[in-house]
Amino acid sequence: MRITTVGLDADDTLWHNEGIFRLTQDRFVALMAHLADPQDLMAKLRDVEKRNLRLYGYGVKGFTLSMIETAMELTGNEAPSRLIAEILAAGREMLTHPVEPLPGVEQALADLAQDYRLVLITKGDLLHQEQKLAASGLGELFVAVEIVSEKDAGTYERVFARHGAGAARAAMCGNSMRSDILPALEAGAYAAYVPYELVWEHEVADAPENHPRFTELSSLAELPAWLRALT
Amino acid sequence: MRITTVGLDADDTLWHNEGIFRLTQDRFVALMAHLADPQDLMAKLRDVEKRNLRLYGYGVKGFTLSMIETAMELTGNEAPSRLIAEILAAGREMLTHPVEPLPGVEQALADLAQDYRLVLITKGDLLHQEQKLAASGLGELFVAVEIVSEKDAGTYERVFARHGAGAARAAMCGNSMRSDILPALEAGAYAAYVPYELVWEHEVADAPENHPRFTELSSLAELPAWLRALT
Repeated sequence: MRITTVGLDADDTLWHNEGIFRLTQDRFVALMAHLADPQDLMAKLRDVEKRNLRLYGYGVKGFTLSMIETAMELTGNEAPSRLIAEILAAGREMLTHPVEPLPGVEQALADLAQDYRLVLITKGDLLHQEQKLAASGLGELFVAVEIVSEKDAGTYERVFARHGAGAARAAMCGNSMRSDILPALEAGAYAAYVPYELVWEHEVADAPENHPRFTELSSLAELPAWLRALT
Repeated sequence: MRITTVGLDADDTLWHNEGIFRLTQDRFVALMAHLADPQDLMAKLRDVEKRNLRLYGYGVKGFTLSMIETAMELTGNEAPSRLIAEILAAGREMLTHPVEPLPGVEQALADLAQDYRLVLITKGDLLHQEQKLAASGLGELFVAVEIVSEKDAGTYERVFARHGAGAARAAMCGNSMRSDILPALEAGAYAAYVPYELVWEHEVADAPENHPRFTELSSLAELPAWLRALT
């Protein structure tokens, strides 16, 4: 069965993302150092993010609002205003951070684009994801971009039906076991897990055991060979 | 030439939106009353929103960040923290505000859905727009939902090609001359303008003169009759 469509996650699969969130978190810890213990601060931020996820969804704007809310809650609504201004600035910098493809990504995608329909499938903020794709210089290699609010089996079924011959003839590649791999396998697609050095806690899940349509690769550069060996 | 696909804008076409923003702005003015003149505050907020539009895009989260930024700038970074907490709460309330279809909308859509493919075409925050559609109870009437970062002629060409027989056999209906009507006409589609009582300044534009594919209706309830008369 020939694969016709390859779905690719964006953040931390094609370019760095979690690292930028971590840098901003470090900056947040430093800004709050005189007001809160780093451990307490991070635990509180995780709680606030989790609580806000259904309302704010994924992305920098919601993260910025969650940092401000965390600062307010940890200080009994007495966070210094300059601190709020610094958090706003940190959020804006995340939105304008340069986007550079991870090593080997550009070549792997150029190779894949010759034989497969490439579809970018990503969660997060619509405008920001489009801006990152444009800034990455990789936009021309994709036949479609699907920015979705949730990545579940139904999402992959719909996307692979729309851009190819259905999930059974598609493969998904990404760094999140929970969002990219497990639901794509459930939909009937092949799935290649390419772990990133950092994982957002919310995205952690166990790898499938001995699944015939699953593989783990150490880099996106190995994806073309794996796909071609399937045929 | 028979129309096959009808595109519909969401905010202020299917349900109230600008009214909710105005209520929040009024609350913001009241919160800032002891710190800023209402006129100056609104002028400043418009400037900040405009400056942030390319970075934050459309939607409640960006609007909330812009209110916080406005408060900081007008007070020389000395806005009281309780005020920031109030702005955060106002933003969250906008995100959970109940969504009720405008009068006549449900019946008009149910009627249209029998003869046309209905596609929701809207700007704004992906998650929040999906949540509003679900809350409105209108979701089942649409064959597709397209949440886009910009509404230009190219957007309408792509969407009407994907969900029908192209723009020449499609009609767009919405309350924004600038975003719903002019670019849809430019793409070759029919367009029905249904003005809402309030218009966001950014969306104002002149109506086309004597355009053969354009009409202005006083309510969405008039849309089915207009479309059927075109055939």
